[in-house]
Amino acid sequence: MSGTPPTLDDVARAVGVHKATASRALNPATRSQVNPETARRITTAARRLGYVPNTLARGLRTSRTTAIGVLIPDLTNPLFPPIVRGIQDRLDAHGYTALLVNTDGDEDRERAQFSDLESRRADGFIVATARRVHPLLAEALARGTALVTVNRTTDLPGIPAVVSDDADGTAQAVGHLTALGHSLIAHLAGPQDVSTGAVRTQAFRHCMDAAGLRPPPESVVVCTAYTEQAGREATRRLLGACPGITAIVAGNDLIALGALAELAAQGRSCPRDVSVVGFNDMPFADRFQPPLTTVRVPHHEMGVQSAQLLLERLLEPQALPRTVLLPARLVVRGSTAPAPAGFPDRAAGITRA
Amino acid sequence: MSGTPPTLDDVARAVGVHKATASRALNPATRSQVNPETARRITTAARRLGYVPNTLARGLRTSRTTAIGVLIPDLTNPLFPPIVRGIQDRLDAHGYTALLVNTDGDEDRERAQFSDLESRRADGFIVATARRVHPLLAEALARGTALVTVNRTTDLPGIPAVVSDDADGTAQAVGHLTALGHSLIAHLAGPQDVSTGAVRTQAFRHCMDAAGLRPPPESVVVCTAYTEQAGREATRRLLGACPGITAIVAGNDLIALGALAELAAQGRSCPRDVSVVGFNDMPFADRFQPPLTTVRVPHHEMGVQSAQLLLERLLEPQALPRTVLLPARLVVRGSTAPAPAGFPDRAAGITRA
Repeated sequence: MSGTPPTLDDVARAVGVHKATASRALNPATRSQVNPETARRITTAARRLGYVPNTLARGLRTSRTTAIGVLIPDLTNPLFPPIVRGIQDRLDAHGYTALLVNTDGDEDRERAQFSDLESRRADGFIVATARRVHPLLAEALARGTALVTVNRTTDLPGIPAVVSDDADGTAQAVGHLTALGHSLIAHLAGPQDVSTGAVRTQAFRHCMDAAGLRPPPESVVVCTAYTEQAGREATRRLLGACPGITAIVAGNDLIALGALAELAAQGRSCPRDVSVVGFNDMPFADRFQPPLTTVRVPHHEMGVQSAQLLLERLLEPQALPRTVLLPARLVVRGSTAPAPAGFPDRAAGITRA
Repeated sequence: MSGTPPTLDDVARAVGVHKATASRALNPATRSQVNPETARRITTAARRLGYVPNTLARGLRTSRTTAIGVLIPDLTNPLFPPIVRGIQDRLDAHGYTALLVNTDGDEDRERAQFSDLESRRADGFIVATARRVHPLLAEALARGTALVTVNRTTDLPGIPAVVSDDADGTAQAVGHLTALGHSLIAHLAGPQDVSTGAVRTQAFRHCMDAAGLRPPPESVVVCTAYTEQAGREATRRLLGACPGITAIVAGNDLIALGALAELAAQGRSCPRDVSVVGFNDMPFADRFQPPLTTVRVPHHEMGVQSAQLLLERLLEPQALPRTVLLPARLVVRGSTAPAPAGFPDRAAGITRA
């Protein structure tokens, strides 16, 4: 641009309002405090004059940058785009922006990224990478940093969280399989150092117990990661140890995809020989072969609610931290079917209570 | 934190280096100018002392915020997470961060978001939302803003871009189908106001022409959007106008998914009755029913290269803008098969040259 860049004074003068009013109208976070018609005239004048508010300078003056750090494991895991989109949608509506980083589950990297985001003066953090034991978050909480976890929780009290009702979702999955006549039900558990893995596994054991089913210990296999590859390896171990199983509750959809691949490789048909239930209802789960029966988690809403909790936290840092639990819902598709006949419980070493 | 926050002087004194050296070591963008061992000692001391560099203040001093605006249509479109991840990976390695916004194809919203990113003093922009005619980008270019487009180009010269070789990818798709004996090949074109749509359609017409095939005008249907729904509607129009077609080249994978759904709804089997080729090889395209034959575009690398071009642009604003073309490659899977017998060309109104 040529000449002196236009100032806030120029904008205020052009519209005939006080400079403070012009400032409020041009800041998305305070715009609602100005009469809408006046705000419109101010933003129009600002655009006409080519005025660019300096959010950076505003951040230094008010100690608010309206930037929120968002930590996720990996954007290319199909679980996270809808969560991030939900976060962005809610932040955007309040004039905030997300600073998104991928940790790839690497603790050192996460620490470096967190500190980079702090140096960018992020006002707070939404964390989708929480582990049950998470020193970085414990330290940030102790420093008074505004934090919210999404999808997962930590064992540490004091951090608001938005999660789905995974225990109920797991109960729906087990209930669906027992209603189809399955009793030889296995569980490909997610990693137990994150809350989703631990909660779903605990719920699985509880539901089996409540149904009077006593699966042998080898029928619960813990996957090293929430990936298709880890799911496939765990399925190989499972089928080696418990060849008689007729149904699998997978820790998530990617693990379920690994199970489908390994079942096919071993010549077992899904759902004729073995039924498989996933978790998440990730995009296109309905287009897989077979279409995946899974537990739908409202990921976009989860993102929206986590941003909402964080914005509330910034307004009232001392408010009691709360956990928002969103409903999970079983979606029945083609990967589950009635239990095949001819697999006596005894053969799989399963005893009925 | 209690007491006076530690300063850069404290860090420099603890290690016994000059303050300027400590500053360079703590700035990811300049760290490589410091001896690695010294840099390590400085960052360790900074962490021990709890020193947080103020990137905001640095931005005001140097007019660099090391923040890059990234505009995408919608993060939940499976095309974009790998592109964004590639951008983040390259920016991260240079101490830059991405400010990501979703425009949802809304021009007014895009303009407001662009101006918000400018007010946050983004050093430059990577744009995945480019339309062939794009006034906002034309204006930004005229102002001297650093810009790179990714995946799509504009008709405006002067903006560096990273795209895949869509013309060659389309040629591979058409070549695959003609080798399978298809001549009644239709095209479900993407929107023609974006370069990917226009380039692929032009390439389709050119390849058909070169193969001596003269499809009737109704066998090329332009979709209103790159979505499954638009693909489904276009397929309905296509099958109404040209019932004899035996193969479809879709503008992208989502359009192809819409075609598969409509074919199934009309009782036509893919690939027995109609072969379908997608474009992109989006995540899990190999798990669809049938697994999708498609043209693989290296999206992650596209993101990496676009960030690289932008960083180069920031170093040398006057360098000649260049376009990086990445190879596209046909991946043959289950949705294509030899042309069925018994569909004479005449029936579909197609004439051979």
